[in-house]
Amino acid sequence: MKTEIITIGDEMLIGQIADTNARFMASELSANGFEVNRITSLGDKESDIVGCLEETAGRSSFVFVTGGLGPTEDDITRQAITRFFECSWEENHDVLERIRDYLLERGYDLTRLNRDQAKTPVGSKIFINPTGTAPGIWMKKKSTHYVFMPGVPFEMRRLMRESIVPELKHTFIQKSYQHKNIVTQGLPEAYLAEKLKDWQGKLPENLSLAYLPTPGIIKLRLSGRDDDAELLEKILNEKIEELKNIIPDYLVHVGDESLEELIGELLVSRGETVATAESCTGGSIASRIVSVSGSSGYFTGSVVAYSNAVKMQMLGVSQKTLDHYGAVSQGVVEEMVSGVMNLYNTDYAVSVSGIAGPTGGTKEKPVGLTWIAAANRKEIMTRNFLFGSNRAVNIEKATNTALNMLRQMILKAD
Amino acid sequence: MKTEIITIGDEMLIGQIADTNARFMASELSANGFEVNRITSLGDKESDIVGCLEETAGRSSFVFVTGGLGPTEDDITRQAITRFFECSWEENHDVLERIRDYLLERGYDLTRLNRDQAKTPVGSKIFINPTGTAPGIWMKKKSTHYVFMPGVPFEMRRLMRESIVPELKHTFIQKSYQHKNIVTQGLPEAYLAEKLKDWQGKLPENLSLAYLPTPGIIKLRLSGRDDDAELLEKILNEKIEELKNIIPDYLVHVGDESLEELIGELLVSRGETVATAESCTGGSIASRIVSVSGSSGYFTGSVVAYSNAVKMQMLGVSQKTLDHYGAVSQGVVEEMVSGVMNLYNTDYAVSVSGIAGPTGGTKEKPVGLTWIAAANRKEIMTRNFLFGSNRAVNIEKATNTALNMLRQMILKAD
Repeated sequence: MKTEIITIGDEMLIGQIADTNARFMASELSANGFEVNRITSLGDKESDIVGCLEETAGRSSFVFVTGGLGPTEDDITRQAITRFFECSWEENHDVLERIRDYLLERGYDLTRLNRDQAKTPVGSKIFINPTGTAPGIWMKKKSTHYVFMPGVPFEMRRLMRESIVPELKHTFIQKSYQHKNIVTQGLPEAYLAEKLKDWQGKLPENLSLAYLPTPGIIKLRLSGRDDDAELLEKILNEKIEELKNIIPDYLVHVGDESLEELIGELLVSRGETVATAESCTGGSIASRIVSVSGSSGYFTGSVVAYSNAVKMQMLGVSQKTLDHYGAVSQGVVEEMVSGVMNLYNTDYAVSVSGIAGPTGGTKEKPVGLTWIAAANRKEIMTRNFLFGSNRAVNIEKATNTALNMLRQMILKAD
Repeated sequence: MKTEIITIGDEMLIGQIADTNARFMASELSANGFEVNRITSLGDKESDIVGCLEETAGRSSFVFVTGGLGPTEDDITRQAITRFFECSWEENHDVLERIRDYLLERGYDLTRLNRDQAKTPVGSKIFINPTGTAPGIWMKKKSTHYVFMPGVPFEMRRLMRESIVPELKHTFIQKSYQHKNIVTQGLPEAYLAEKLKDWQGKLPENLSLAYLPTPGIIKLRLSGRDDDAELLEKILNEKIEELKNIIPDYLVHVGDESLEELIGELLVSRGETVATAESCTGGSIASRIVSVSGSSGYFTGSVVAYSNAVKMQMLGVSQKTLDHYGAVSQGVVEEMVSGVMNLYNTDYAVSVSGIAGPTGGTKEKPVGLTWIAAANRKEIMTRNFLFGSNRAVNIEKATNTALNMLRQMILKAD
């Protein structure tokens, strides 16, 4: 069923907030087999809202609208409803009771009761709002169903989950939709696309693949629709098995977990610990590890060694190695990784030294050159990379690559 | 000028990500006087994209489009451009060179060079992408200007900031529009709004104020329109002087620089240095300092001391202080800050210890409790905070607060 989402609020149009309401609704709707074709954000302007509603009538089966239903002056969705549906409003007993309860619950005086708020469009289906006053309103024009909800995120979410979706399930939800996320690391988008070209070309019609690239990590999303949910899951799993054989070295895992969450799970299950020694990443590997709740169980700490003096004094990097090979070298990251593992007495460690840029590069060692080492008590794995010229991107790529090398090192112990 | 934003990508329509690209573009555009009327998100479907472009032709003066310009199969914005503008594509020498450089910089083989990627629409204005391969494309149909950009956030952001907006400024941005950004730190949005209520109420009609909140930092944007640019600037400056008197303790500065950039400027001009000692922030203060190019000139390094053992061993925190007051205490952050300043021999240091949550809180020390110390060689300034229950938000609030305390400590030396 063709579906659209409309979110209303000036704050999105000036970039004050990202449209997280649309994201929530899109996620709930697609998880229930609705095909969302378009999301539109509009300001608090009656003519814009009416114009957009008119565009959708007949074009889509469902239009879900949030925002502008509250009692304040800038909430003009109610006026837009009147104009678009040419409807009148009448007092709704259930809504009036709900508003009365709401005021009493909060200890407010009933003189505050604005009976206008209890009016709903004649002929509409109403969904009582359990956490606010503005109800959900369901109406139909041409062949299109319209569902209006308040824009306060927690009110919309509860209405959606507890009232709207169950009602939809009752009558409209048929087709099954599923998707799987696949995390890959180490191949740029173009190269990955090249490797997956044949496989992607042979995907069944009802499956589709999307690339979601961030610096150093590309997520793939394989999604599909089929009336037979079991068959669909089977096909998705088969295709992912094929994928594992095509990019065994780059496929990190299938699921929604981040690299730092995967590392956390591995270390918790083994009762092992890790530390980091960071130069150009400046603590960003450590902060990613710490972003996981419970990381105090396996993360001891980090030495951010930005200056050569600190590399020597704290991590035992030798003057000789620095003089001979420079701070961005295999020798230095290997001494750093051993140094921090001994200093913090951990089972694993990872270290990075690179030229993040945009300045500081030379002909022999250009901006983007980065050495990374991951180690356990017996072995050090060292690799070098040539990232790009953007400082922030280089740091993020180095961080993601280091986390993946650490993860490989832990898995190696098996 | 009426403006629309179109973002393209299936991932938004299934609710996998919120549309942060639209937020960034809306913010940049309104900061430069563009009136964004509508944001539309579409999937990777040629007919939907062409249909939406057709709706906008003549309706708005500017349409900014991101997504679907990359080399992979699901990027079909290029096909939509061909159909909508009825244009042909030709190889663009500059883009080809850029792709070649991009591959060479990364040490990739030139046989991988896909010359199709170097083709651009005949008659379009091209903006080279400094961090990727897909260029920005500027075309016109009816009275509407169309600007197409890649959807990878960091690529779009740099293109927008360094190429598109400067080009817009050149010809389209009205002189009559101006804005000032004001960075505040330390007051939640509701409290700030309360303090500014009277001042805001008395702003002239042609001035408006927007709140742009992130964890621990609230930016204010004061913008105005007036045919007399000099007068407008004078009024904006007067209003900001008033603001400085209303929130002297919370106004960090007027301008676009981040806290870490301001700290960098101060330290460079003084020839002084800084180090950090971090527990719950786990390196995120250090990584913010390092995000500034040239930070190697004043940042020595950091000790991320997540475990008590590391706090004692590396930073000289005493067993007695830990036993008596616990790891999250005034005594511990003060020993941490002195410890790292001595260890790394710096002029300043900052330290943090807190309960980031969501677990680990007690009745006496609830989740969100955070101690922060900033120090120079003579003095330590220590404060405690009770942030919220969200781990990521707490870490970001602690990081922003610590950076601001460090900045205050440096300014105190005057």
